[in-house]
Amino acid sequence: MARVVVDVMPKAEILDPQGQAIVGALPRLGFAGVSDVRQGKRFELEVDDNVGDDELATIAESFLANTVIEEWKVTRL
Amino acid sequence: MARVVVDVMPKAEILDPQGQAIVGALPRLGFAGVSDVRQGKRFELEVDDNVGDDELATIAESFLANTVIEEWKVTRL
Repeated sequence: MARVVVDVMPKAEILDPQGQAIVGALPRLGFAGVSDVRQGKRFELEVDDNVGDDELATIAESFLANTVIEEWKVTRL
Repeated sequence: MARVVVDVMPKAEILDPQGQAIVGALPRLGFAGVSDVRQGKRFELEVDDNVGDDELATIAESFLANTVIEEWKVTRL
């Protein structure tokens, strides 16, 4: 068994209203010094050892991320 | 400026219906070998250099994560 993390983040050129809401709220809550927040998704997968990087990339690209607006990264732990 | 990642994941003992939906869907889509998926959130923050680890922990714990059901981890990039 291998442990794999897939990070999915909004592309840099895409507006991220959730992240902007957090940036706006932090000063009101007393936290200064945070100038930008982007919110994305993190998937932790348990996969068989025979699942290759190609298949993981296909899962991330075609299924976990919306590649029109999101970029993804696969990391084996 | 420093770049900080906050990962927020459902606690191990908490059901994760989104992750379970993905586990159930992958075989139907032709991907075998994925035995578990947990879905969480990833926040990427731009913070001033004078923002300390204590403040980042407070932001993660009190604001980005719901500590009743989620665990969090702060990583400086």
